[in-house]
Amino acid sequence: MNRDEALDRLLDARVGRLATADATRHPHVVPFVYALEGDTLYWAVDEKPKRSRNLKRLANTRENPRVEVLVDAYDEDWTRLWWVRATGTTRILEPGPEWDRAISALAEKYKQYAESPPGGPVVAIDLGRVSGWQANQPN
Amino acid sequence: MNRDEALDRLLDARVGRLATADATRHPHVVPFVYALEGDTLYWAVDEKPKRSRNLKRLANTRENPRVEVLVDAYDEDWTRLWWVRATGTTRILEPGPEWDRAISALAEKYKQYAESPPGGPVVAIDLGRVSGWQANQPN
Repeated sequence: MNRDEALDRLLDARVGRLATADATRHPHVVPFVYALEGDTLYWAVDEKPKRSRNLKRLANTRENPRVEVLVDAYDEDWTRLWWVRATGTTRILEPGPEWDRAISALAEKYKQYAESPPGGPVVAIDLGRVSGWQANQPN
Repeated sequence: MNRDEALDRLLDARVGRLATADATRHPHVVPFVYALEGDTLYWAVDEKPKRSRNLKRLANTRENPRVEVLVDAYDEDWTRLWWVRATGTTRILEPGPEWDRAISALAEKYKQYAESPPGGPVVAIDLGRVSGWQANQPN
């Protein structure tokens, strides 16, 4: 799968998994919703970030901005499996034009965010290597 | 969600995501199928491990045995979201009784493995902290 096709799947997927690692190399992985704009992916902390999962992924991001993002499809027919992975570097945004664009992109993709915009920090992930795999296809 | 309920969801899920981190703290995340036996989770490399994803997750495991496993459900109705996460420590198995039990557990859970057992290395993940979250439920 070439980069363009992998990016297309990353653009369309409704949920991804975000892996971070802290200073002591403990990996951490959470499901997350995001919007892709060009080569940058945006996600936001929900309005009431009382869940430790949000705090941990933000804390890891501050300690170590290198992340990996996964989208995949599981099917009991294993000839239909595919995944796309992207490495990335995170930036925690300050309020401003990019923050506004990120919130707009999230609201456009998810009606939940259109109705109730996320109120917490907004994080940009600048993508590096994007690769994909699909069962039964040449790579 | 208490540990028993979280383990039940881990037992039943058909696919998980496995996060590892290498010596330079680059996180890595892949979808994977596994079987849970007590507090240990088993996965195996497919018979023809020509995909770099398998090699990378094994290499990371050798460098740093700390991993995290995620299972989750995505739904457009965000009141139905849930996830379970488990920290773990990996051991790459040698052929022997535990290897045999792992292969049996995988074949029992996945008919694909019953028909064609995985031929590559078998990895055990001894689970540590297991936690879960479900939308709209007290935690």
